[in-house]
Amino acid sequence: MKLVTYMVKADELNIQSQDGMLARLGWVRDGHVIDVGLAQQCMELAQNLVFPYRLATDMLTFLQRGEQERDFLQRLDQALGQRDWLRLQVEGEPVALALAEVDLFAPIATPSSLRDFYAFEEHVRTCRQKRGLGMVPQWYEIPVFYFSNHQAVIGPEAPVKKPAYTNQLDYELEIACVIGKRGKNIKREEALAHIAGFMIMNDWSARDAQLQEVAVGLGPAKGKDFATSLGPWLVTTDELEDCRAGERWSLTMRARVNGRELSKGNTKDLHWTFAQMIERASAECELVPGDVIGSGTVGTGCLLELGEEVHPYLQPGDVVELEIERLGLLRNTIVE
Amino acid sequence: MKLVTYMVKADELNIQSQDGMLARLGWVRDGHVIDVGLAQQCMELAQNLVFPYRLATDMLTFLQRGEQERDFLQRLDQALGQRDWLRLQVEGEPVALALAEVDLFAPIATPSSLRDFYAFEEHVRTCRQKRGLGMVPQWYEIPVFYFSNHQAVIGPEAPVKKPAYTNQLDYELEIACVIGKRGKNIKREEALAHIAGFMIMNDWSARDAQLQEVAVGLGPAKGKDFATSLGPWLVTTDELEDCRAGERWSLTMRARVNGRELSKGNTKDLHWTFAQMIERASAECELVPGDVIGSGTVGTGCLLELGEEVHPYLQPGDVVELEIERLGLLRNTIVE
Repeated sequence: MKLVTYMVKADELNIQSQDGMLARLGWVRDGHVIDVGLAQQCMELAQNLVFPYRLATDMLTFLQRGEQERDFLQRLDQALGQRDWLRLQVEGEPVALALAEVDLFAPIATPSSLRDFYAFEEHVRTCRQKRGLGMVPQWYEIPVFYFSNHQAVIGPEAPVKKPAYTNQLDYELEIACVIGKRGKNIKREEALAHIAGFMIMNDWSARDAQLQEVAVGLGPAKGKDFATSLGPWLVTTDELEDCRAGERWSLTMRARVNGRELSKGNTKDLHWTFAQMIERASAECELVPGDVIGSGTVGTGCLLELGEEVHPYLQPGDVVELEIERLGLLRNTIVE
Repeated sequence: MKLVTYMVKADELNIQSQDGMLARLGWVRDGHVIDVGLAQQCMELAQNLVFPYRLATDMLTFLQRGEQERDFLQRLDQALGQRDWLRLQVEGEPVALALAEVDLFAPIATPSSLRDFYAFEEHVRTCRQKRGLGMVPQWYEIPVFYFSNHQAVIGPEAPVKKPAYTNQLDYELEIACVIGKRGKNIKREEALAHIAGFMIMNDWSARDAQLQEVAVGLGPAKGKDFATSLGPWLVTTDELEDCRAGERWSLTMRARVNGRELSKGNTKDLHWTFAQMIERASAECELVPGDVIGSGTVGTGCLLELGEEVHPYLQPGDVVELEIERLGLLRNTIVE
């Protein structure tokens, strides 16, 4: 399934909310977003399908409840599909909204944590070359990551404010998984069962700030902490089985700036697989539902790699579109 | 005030809880922990002091509510002090417990985020010397930090499990502040108003893992993500005014391993002040109540700096005590 977090105007529904908005959990079906809460209410009123409790109406709770909740949601989708679902309403509110009408947020608005790996060899090699450096042997020994700012996640179509302190704003084309099952010291062989699904990730980067801070040997932090885009939806692993061979999924990845394609790669080129990343991240450290793990940038997947002769760093007005096969399109515009 | 988070056995109080334990908010008075919830109930029953609402009974809510809540708590403390407070009870449950009887947790069990700076010059200089490196000029240009694992916080007296993957387990003697007021692009001159208080922090480190991963240019992550100790209490800034001169507090810091003093320093030796760290962290990035900011290790404040000739890396059974003037004693024991 394609799970989404979307916003509705609380005041229009006579619901109290601090900023007038309310986050809801939905899923995508034929170009529409179906609201989980309303769909369940609808099916129950029609005596079509009754569950022992209310399904989760936010992503984190949904993930925490695990496999049973995912099964329930699939049954709800099936039951709905047998009816004239586009016309269903609960007290005048439609159960399904056309995607174009919906204000999508990041599938998981505040991840429990945000780890970003460095797992595509071409990206690492090219970025180091640009700085006159060769590959470090340690890169081949272990999959390396850093913790980024889980509190600065934004969604599709959200504006990205160019930090005042950077003149080298860059995008990074990545794929991220979301943890759906708690675990510590997870073995590589068991790791895939801990993944709830995948999303596109844009790890926005301020290259000048990053270069300055990593020279000291920590981070990056300010090079990354102002924004990370996730979305547009979380695609559950069961939907991607036909693209998987062992620990690898084969999905084409592309990035465009102002409509011009600049980056192209494939998730199968990962040197370190998600199974290995999860094994590494969970060594002596508990992973919990809602943890997000980024792959690192795919080869050619950022301006730092491509060089200013291909495209200058991003400026207000630039539109960046990341696209991954089966995972949708994640678009953001840079603003001052 | 000295604020604490402490655990009570839920079943003894006929309260439901998943793991049988319940976290509560309290403060320290004359060697006792006073429970916020019970104290308020007690004063209200006695018609001694009535507030317009129930005070927060967990640290994060307390911090989020800001200055007014802190004022209320001080009034509660004063009102209680005018009575025979050691004997007060609510339905048989004592309002005050002797510190020795209390199971303290980290003052903030799961920080909203965890940043760790690198702000003491002596530590940076000595650690780099050990690896045959000089100081990097960038260190003097900006205060540098990394994000660590906010989900692996432990409290005083909690055992620290030595990760299976390390043979170089180390402690780090640090002071940390907790953010009490939301803000973005906070100027240095306004930064102190965003600090709710200070605690001792032990940034446990696996030096071999750290060395391997930072060679790749990211992190540290596995070098740090298994545990960070905070506590024993959060001392609010108003209690430390007499130790402050401008942006600096003067507080002696010490570390002992198995009773032997190995590290000694002072918080006033920070090259980068907390005001500067907050200015840096909040540039284009919102800080929220519950964010924890560590100073980095004070000079002499870890075994890496001291060298194995002074003390070998930590082994199961070792007892590490960090002490900072006015902030108490943070003790943990290494276990297998």
